[in-house]
Amino acid sequence: MTETIKDDAFDLLEALKAQLKAHELDAILIPHNDEYLSSELTPDCERIATLTNFTGSAGFVCVCINREDALPLEVANRKDESDLRKIEHEQAVFVDGRYKVQVKEQVNEDVYDCFNFAEITPAAYLCAILPKKSRVGVDLKCISYQYYQDLKQALSIAGIEIVPLEENLLDLVWEDRPKAVCSPVEIFPDEYNGCPSMQKRQALAQTLRDRSLDATIISSPETVCWLLNIRGRDRDFLPIINCRLVAYANEALEWYVNLEHLSDEVQASLEDHVGHIDIFPEVGFDDVLQRLSSSNCTIYVDPRNTNAHIFDVLYSHGAKVVKGLGLCELPKARKNATELAGEHKAHLKDGVAMCRFQAWLDDLTKASNITDLEGYQRRVEDIDEAVLAEKAEYFRRIEGDFIEPSFATISALGPNAAMCHYNHAEVATARKMGTDPLYLIDSGAQFLEGTTDITRTILVGPNLTEEMQLMYTLVLKAHIALASTIFPPGTCGMQLDAIARRPLWEYGCDYEHGTGHGVGHVLAVHEGPHNISTKSSNIPLEVGMVTSIEPGYYEADKYGIRLENLYEVCPCSQQGCQHMLCFEPLTLVPFDTRLILRELLTPAERSWLNDYHQNVLSVIKNAASTLSDMEVSYLTTATAAI
Amino acid sequence: MTETIKDDAFDLLEALKAQLKAHELDAILIPHNDEYLSSELTPDCERIATLTNFTGSAGFVCVCINREDALPLEVANRKDESDLRKIEHEQAVFVDGRYKVQVKEQVNEDVYDCFNFAEITPAAYLCAILPKKSRVGVDLKCISYQYYQDLKQALSIAGIEIVPLEENLLDLVWEDRPKAVCSPVEIFPDEYNGCPSMQKRQALAQTLRDRSLDATIISSPETVCWLLNIRGRDRDFLPIINCRLVAYANEALEWYVNLEHLSDEVQASLEDHVGHIDIFPEVGFDDVLQRLSSSNCTIYVDPRNTNAHIFDVLYSHGAKVVKGLGLCELPKARKNATELAGEHKAHLKDGVAMCRFQAWLDDLTKASNITDLEGYQRRVEDIDEAVLAEKAEYFRRIEGDFIEPSFATISALGPNAAMCHYNHAEVATARKMGTDPLYLIDSGAQFLEGTTDITRTILVGPNLTEEMQLMYTLVLKAHIALASTIFPPGTCGMQLDAIARRPLWEYGCDYEHGTGHGVGHVLAVHEGPHNISTKSSNIPLEVGMVTSIEPGYYEADKYGIRLENLYEVCPCSQQGCQHMLCFEPLTLVPFDTRLILRELLTPAERSWLNDYHQNVLSVIKNAASTLSDMEVSYLTTATAAI
Repeated sequence: MTETIKDDAFDLLEALKAQLKAHELDAILIPHNDEYLSSELTPDCERIATLTNFTGSAGFVCVCINREDALPLEVANRKDESDLRKIEHEQAVFVDGRYKVQVKEQVNEDVYDCFNFAEITPAAYLCAILPKKSRVGVDLKCISYQYYQDLKQALSIAGIEIVPLEENLLDLVWEDRPKAVCSPVEIFPDEYNGCPSMQKRQALAQTLRDRSLDATIISSPETVCWLLNIRGRDRDFLPIINCRLVAYANEALEWYVNLEHLSDEVQASLEDHVGHIDIFPEVGFDDVLQRLSSSNCTIYVDPRNTNAHIFDVLYSHGAKVVKGLGLCELPKARKNATELAGEHKAHLKDGVAMCRFQAWLDDLTKASNITDLEGYQRRVEDIDEAVLAEKAEYFRRIEGDFIEPSFATISALGPNAAMCHYNHAEVATARKMGTDPLYLIDSGAQFLEGTTDITRTILVGPNLTEEMQLMYTLVLKAHIALASTIFPPGTCGMQLDAIARRPLWEYGCDYEHGTGHGVGHVLAVHEGPHNISTKSSNIPLEVGMVTSIEPGYYEADKYGIRLENLYEVCPCSQQGCQHMLCFEPLTLVPFDTRLILRELLTPAERSWLNDYHQNVLSVIKNAASTLSDMEVSYLTTATAAI
Repeated sequence: MTETIKDDAFDLLEALKAQLKAHELDAILIPHNDEYLSSELTPDCERIATLTNFTGSAGFVCVCINREDALPLEVANRKDESDLRKIEHEQAVFVDGRYKVQVKEQVNEDVYDCFNFAEITPAAYLCAILPKKSRVGVDLKCISYQYYQDLKQALSIAGIEIVPLEENLLDLVWEDRPKAVCSPVEIFPDEYNGCPSMQKRQALAQTLRDRSLDATIISSPETVCWLLNIRGRDRDFLPIINCRLVAYANEALEWYVNLEHLSDEVQASLEDHVGHIDIFPEVGFDDVLQRLSSSNCTIYVDPRNTNAHIFDVLYSHGAKVVKGLGLCELPKARKNATELAGEHKAHLKDGVAMCRFQAWLDDLTKASNITDLEGYQRRVEDIDEAVLAEKAEYFRRIEGDFIEPSFATISALGPNAAMCHYNHAEVATARKMGTDPLYLIDSGAQFLEGTTDITRTILVGPNLTEEMQLMYTLVLKAHIALASTIFPPGTCGMQLDAIARRPLWEYGCDYEHGTGHGVGHVLAVHEGPHNISTKSSNIPLEVGMVTSIEPGYYEADKYGIRLENLYEVCPCSQQGCQHMLCFEPLTLVPFDTRLILRELLTPAERSWLNDYHQNVLSVIKNAASTLSDMEVSYLTTATAAI
């Protein structure tokens, strides 16, 4: 974070405001996501980071040129007057609870107000700051239709009009905007995906016919890649290529994709792998929408993962649209036997890697210096968050069929862990070991067999307090409470979320992020439609779904704790509960028992933890013949019953 | 339940089918509720009971005259083929989980199919049984607009049309239909309601102005009675009079009510009590809707508690309607200090009454005979569910300011308790004591100070099994789990529901009803908008709301267990949790500790129970100087620490 970046950004802000004026707008709302509504952005779509320096994976920016003196904003669920928030500037950044610390580190608060959008929505802000009948520009490509509808309704209270933008005004003034990425299409073999593309296509067409629909638009690239059993490298962490697809009830598929993705060779093998599909350049997609709209087809579209521009074109050309959850979303989320077996293999590799990493870290904290990756001697005090992250990645990379990390590793020492989505690569100086008691690492991998995601909080230094141990124990209790829950079919994530929070609530604590997210199979590490959170998680958990369980606790400027495993949703095998569902662990990595206040665990919680550790020990030891004596010794100690 | 009733009902069914034919309908959907959408019906609206003999408080009947051979119906979340349900008849009754046993006892299954609508909705049934383009008649007055919209959408899949009925076709052929009830309006004094009507009216008008609305239609009589601080006796258990109201932003109120409710004397005192209101006969309400619609007013209406007919008139006359949660619903649910103090007083009386009842019952089960209410000697074996219910009501009645029971007492011995909403008065022979180990009593009162509702399951006889003790203990654990939960502001019932279910889920068990409902203040014992259930309970719990917590377990043909207390939502006083909310018990009645498997309770659960009992003992003993030695002795034993 340098002053130069901020100065550049300031010029950009001024240029953007000139555009607002030229377009007779009073304000603009800039969403974080790109036109695929993806949160993993390619560099050419890093609009908020370029403008404000905020690099989080979700958020909005509002820029106004015609503000009124607004009253202080009412904060949702505020406790007292001090919660009222003043509006000081003409522009504001809105982030969620995960980023409330990070946003203040990254964004210049002399220029931007920073809000948590659980407390103040961009819509409430715009209603407060703008005169009635103001015009707010939005690039409809970067928001979902669902969000567009909600936004329109919220702004209508203050008589504010949303003006759909023909061009993205920020892109117009973004001088050195990077070029779009275009990676080659890769065939994802049936031995890994477990279901030929033709079979998925036939099932989709059958669903369309069953529901008297003619076609469906799939505008999420992950879903297209799942359907076609392909992958790509357009983005870091998310092995997809940018594309869209129209599927018809007669099994025909039209694929809209930048043709640079496709060599002749790939095109030829694609036909073998997928069957016949009609391939068109993606730039013509608006024309397709117009043709579809005037064809008297009944078209099925998901308003939550399709951008508002697509709906705008459909509706303005008289399309017959049926809205609902994307027809591939549940089939994609219900992993098949091959995918699940792959996930277990991937997690075994990941478990070996993380166990070796933790053994290495354990050794490191005992020694005063270690041999680092390049063979140099370093003092513990020279080891920083970047070295730690590289080391964890190294242990994963040496396992076979590693593609890439499944997201930017969160490697956070001491107070940095209080930022849920901290990235050491985005601060001026990564923090060094030696003074902090706690280290949080949230990391994962894309292996060819599956996708992993795990968080551990580990004792690495002096100054551990009893409060930290208490909070670690409460977060562990929260994790175990949900992980050990048996529940009936039909139960959705919103029903389960509070089971994890309850042990923290009991001490007046909470965490401002979801409790769990679905995980794609060699696709997005955050994949719906199911999740476990306080809101909008009304999709029942079903057999074969994968979910994280990751409660946490964050004390700003001090420390952060999160304990995350992935679980497979399975039929329960317990006597009398065979009609129920349960969570079977995928993740095979010990929790740090040194941080537990044992007397706070119930016998049932201790028993869950000891059983989990017993299984980690036996599976990892059996599988990893290459473990060193030191690593075996670490693992044996780390998994010892408490 | 006699054959005669069934024969009468059969004639009525045939007459109804003739009406369907005459109106060129293929089917009719008959909802349980009346035109106020109330589930506590006056006799003239007991349509489903008259037609089918089913007396439950919720349900639908479908009658078809033009059915197809439908495939077996797919049951939601079905486990295997045996769950598929065949359609055998031309008519079906749909009930919820609470009534799945009762419906089969009451309804002639040679005439009606009986379905649980959590598994098969009336809409799915109609889609399956009717040819495409069929016409289904519905009296729009008896369904909410929200339900009407959902129904239209669900039926549109099969191209089935809903035909709004001008007249209720069942009423046309119902020969000895009772007359509508019309009780005098009673002033509900400010010393009990705690907030003058004028103050409520001003706050409502302010809300209308704040939201740029001109008027709101209040079509729930409970809400009108709350706003005007009046009560009445139009129905058993629910002390209201039937009426509707239009409130304007300028504070004017128009009250639509059968003028027979109002003596000159009451009209005069009403003006003092409420301020000026314009009173009109309710029969003219459709004209008012038309006038409002064409007046260019913006009218606020709640689609969940307003019938579809009202919306139909509004929309067909071009009204500008804004839909949302009724503007009085949250103010009514957030009880004021006077109402809460009243609830505590009412629960103290209720606690004394229930403690004396339980002491009497305890004595009864020890003796071989007792002196009954009329002074006669009876053998225990002659005491039936009706006598027990009367005795419980007797102990309430002798406390001061008792108005009436707050609902029909559920007094159920042995297997009858497996019917969640069993009513001994509706079966041929009430069950007698002597052979069943368990007795379930769910009862409550309308006192002038407040409304009570409590369920206990009590050991009253031989043959107790360990399974019953296990299930009692699990239901108690479920109750304690939720009752002891501390939670942040903003938490809604759907988030909390599973905390209660989890201890039962762990043993593969569950209950097919909500975990908790809001309770009105000398109004409906089931009052929203908040509740605690698996679905549609997205209203946050707030300070001052009252809710039941009532998990249960039901083993058909064997026994039923439910443990219900009412709680007030309060700020938490625990150190470090002052920003959180918690449940403070209103109910003051011991749980039957003889039924508990002590070793299954955690120390924290035992401690909650012992603290609760300690409080019950001290409060009841202090308050009730009239307790006999026997009653004090019972209470001391019943509340002893375990």
